[in-house]
Amino acid sequence: MADLDLMRELATEGKTRILLLVLDGLGGLPVTPDGPTELEAAHTPNLDALAARSMCGLSTPVAPGISPGSGPGHLALFGYDPLRYEIGRGVLEALGIGFDLQPADVAARGNFCTLDPKTGLITDRRAGRIPTEVGARLCEKLRQIRLPGVETFVEPVQEYRFLLVLRGKGLYDGLTETDPQQVGKPPLPVEPLRPEAAHTAELFNQWLAEARKLLADEYPANGCNLRGIARDPGLPQMPQIYKLRCGAIATYPMYRGVAKLAGMEVLPTGETIEDEVETLKAHWANYDFFFLHVKKTDSRGEDGDFEGKVKVIEHFDEVLPGILALGPDVVIVTGDHSTPAVWKAHSWHELPVLLWARYIRPDGVKQFGERPCMAGGLGHIHHVDLMPLAMAHAGRLTKFGA
Amino acid sequence: MADLDLMRELATEGKTRILLLVLDGLGGLPVTPDGPTELEAAHTPNLDALAARSMCGLSTPVAPGISPGSGPGHLALFGYDPLRYEIGRGVLEALGIGFDLQPADVAARGNFCTLDPKTGLITDRRAGRIPTEVGARLCEKLRQIRLPGVETFVEPVQEYRFLLVLRGKGLYDGLTETDPQQVGKPPLPVEPLRPEAAHTAELFNQWLAEARKLLADEYPANGCNLRGIARDPGLPQMPQIYKLRCGAIATYPMYRGVAKLAGMEVLPTGETIEDEVETLKAHWANYDFFFLHVKKTDSRGEDGDFEGKVKVIEHFDEVLPGILALGPDVVIVTGDHSTPAVWKAHSWHELPVLLWARYIRPDGVKQFGERPCMAGGLGHIHHVDLMPLAMAHAGRLTKFGA
Repeated sequence: MADLDLMRELATEGKTRILLLVLDGLGGLPVTPDGPTELEAAHTPNLDALAARSMCGLSTPVAPGISPGSGPGHLALFGYDPLRYEIGRGVLEALGIGFDLQPADVAARGNFCTLDPKTGLITDRRAGRIPTEVGARLCEKLRQIRLPGVETFVEPVQEYRFLLVLRGKGLYDGLTETDPQQVGKPPLPVEPLRPEAAHTAELFNQWLAEARKLLADEYPANGCNLRGIARDPGLPQMPQIYKLRCGAIATYPMYRGVAKLAGMEVLPTGETIEDEVETLKAHWANYDFFFLHVKKTDSRGEDGDFEGKVKVIEHFDEVLPGILALGPDVVIVTGDHSTPAVWKAHSWHELPVLLWARYIRPDGVKQFGERPCMAGGLGHIHHVDLMPLAMAHAGRLTKFGA
Repeated sequence: MADLDLMRELATEGKTRILLLVLDGLGGLPVTPDGPTELEAAHTPNLDALAARSMCGLSTPVAPGISPGSGPGHLALFGYDPLRYEIGRGVLEALGIGFDLQPADVAARGNFCTLDPKTGLITDRRAGRIPTEVGARLCEKLRQIRLPGVETFVEPVQEYRFLLVLRGKGLYDGLTETDPQQVGKPPLPVEPLRPEAAHTAELFNQWLAEARKLLADEYPANGCNLRGIARDPGLPQMPQIYKLRCGAIATYPMYRGVAKLAGMEVLPTGETIEDEVETLKAHWANYDFFFLHVKKTDSRGEDGDFEGKVKVIEHFDEVLPGILALGPDVVIVTGDHSTPAVWKAHSWHELPVLLWARYIRPDGVKQFGERPCMAGGLGHIHHVDLMPLAMAHAGRLTKFGA
C-alpha cells in the first residue's frame, strides 16, 4: 500500500481527468448457490462493454471479514487507510443530516433510551424506537438547555437518534460514551480520556443532567445516551495529497460530508442519477477528479430488495454512455462495500471493480459481475490501492526513487 | 489484516457454530511436473462436493517463502499474527510432551552435546544423536540437581533433546541461549536480556555447572546446551477476543498445548480420526468454535511417503459427511502449512483452503486441490485472515465504523 505521504511526494499536476463512480453497496450475493448476484442479474450492456475494455477485479474495502460503515468504505476509496483514519460516529451523524459542522465543534450521537423510573437503570437502549416526530419534539425541548460559554445544537436524526453539538472555545474530543451497551445498567458519565478534555466532559455531563430532568416525564424516552463524541478528524486534504481539483456529486448529505472532510468541493445537485450526471457535465471543465455517488443500490440492498437493487444498477447503466462521452482519462466503477439483498446490511464481501484507462492490459473479462471479476487482471485488491492506481493511469505520479 | 483488537471490538455473541478442520501439512507438491499433488491424487468425493458449494483459495501461513513451525502455523490459523505473537521453543517443547506448564514457569529446550574433554569445545551439537533411552537415563541423573528456592523438572523428549523447567517465584524470561550454533566453540553462559532476568540467568548457569559435572563421564553426551528459554507468552485468549466458546480436539500434545495457550478448552479424545469425530459429536452442543486437528498428513509428508499422505487425506474424506451432518454454520478446511512428501519437511508453499457458509459466492471450483484452488474466489489469502472471515460468515462481527 502506498500511503498518503508517498502520494504527496509523487503526485504531479496534469491535464488528465479521473472519474470515480461509486455505486453504494454494489457487491451482492446469489439468492441460491447457482444463481446470479444483483449485478450479474442486471442487464448492463454499457458496463459490460466498458468492462471488456478495462481491467477488472475484486476489492476488499477494509480487511477480510470486516463490514465497513459508510465512513471507512469511502475513506478507503479516497486512498485513506480506514484503520488509521477514523471519522467519529458523532461527526458522521452530523454529516448525515447535513449539519454545518465547524472544525472546533464537538459532536455526539444521541440515543433516547428508557430508564426504570425507580432504579434509573436502562430498560431499553432505543426507547421503544419512538417515532421520528416524537424524537423531534424531544429535541425541541432539549434545546432550552444552556451551558456556560458554549453554544449547543440538538437536531433530530431518526426515531430515537439525535445529534448534539457543542460549539465554543477550548472544547476537546477524547471522551468516553455513556451507553453501557446493555440493559440493566445505568448510563455512564462522560469521562475524559486525556487531561485537556476534562472541561468538555464536565459540560457534556452538565447537559446530560439537565436533559434527564427535562425527559423525566417522557417515558419511554425518559433518558438518553451519548455515543461517539468526536471532532472533525482533520484529514489530510485530497487537493494537497494528489494535486487534483476534486469535485463531489452525491444526493445524500452523509457522502457529501465525507467528501468535504477529505477536502473535495461539494457540487450542488438534485435527487436523481440524471441530476448527478447533469451536475457532472456542468462542472466537467473545472475539476480533475470527480467522485460521483449513487445511493440507491445500498438502500435497496438494505431493504432486502434484490430486484430493486438490480433496477438501480440498470438505471445507472443507462446513464453511463453519457458520462463516458465526457472523455475522462481514467474511470473506476465500484462501490464502498457490499450490501447483498439476502444479507440486508453492509457486508464484508469483496466487491467488483473496473478500471478503464488508456494504458492498461485488457484481461478478457466481458461482463461486470462478481464471478467474472474473480478472473480479472486486477486480481484481489484493496480499496486504498485504487487512488494510487487511478493517479498512475492518469499519468500523475512520478517515479519512486532514482 | 484485521488485528485482534479490532476483532475484540467487533465480535458479538451468537448462536452460530464455526468448525476449523486442520489437516496438518496438507499442502503438497507433484512428484513429476505434470503429476498431481497428494491432495489432488487422493480420491475425495466428499471434499470435492463441499468445495463445489464453497469459496476456495490458496493461503499463506506466515509470509511468502516462510516455512512455519507448528506454533506459528497454528497461531495464524487462530487469527494471531505469527510475526507478532511468538511461542518460545522451550514452551513448545513442554507442550509437545504434554508437560503441565504453569504461567510463571520458565522452560528451556535442552540438547545433549559432545564436548572435547580437554578443551571443553563443542565437537557435536547433538551428541551423536544418542538413543532416546540414553537421553532418558541422563535426564534421570540430572533430576538430582537442586537449585535454591525453585523446583526443577527435567523431562526426556527424543534422542538428544530434553526439557528443563524452573518453577518458583520471581523467575523471568528474556535470556540468551547457550548453543553457539557451531562446533569448535564452548557453550555460552545464559545472559539476561533485561535486568529483572539476572537472577533467573544465574539459576540456569548454576544448573548448567552442576549438569556438566554430572555428565562429565557420559561421553558422547558429556555436555548440554539450553535453547529458547521462554515462558507462557500470555496470549490474548480466544474466548475474550471472539466471544466464542472454543473447543480443541487433537491427538498430539503439541496441538492441544497451542490451543490451550490460545484459550481453548482441550477436549479429551483418543488416537484416531474416528475418535476425534466422536469427541466432536459428544461436545457439539457446548461450544461455538471447534478446532479439529488431523496429524498424520504431516507425519507422512515428513516421511516422504506420498501414498501414505494420500491415504490419510482419503481417510479424512470418509469421515467428513459425519462431521458436516452436525450442521455447522461455517466450515473451513485447510492445514497449518504445507508438508510436501517430496520435500520431507514443513514448507513455505501456499496451501488449499475451503470456506463453506450460507452467505458466499460459489466460485466454480469443483475439486479440492492446489491447482483448482488457484482459480478460487478467495484468491490468495493469509492464514490470519481466516478467523475474521469465519467470524463474518458466522454473523458474529458488527460493522466497523458508522
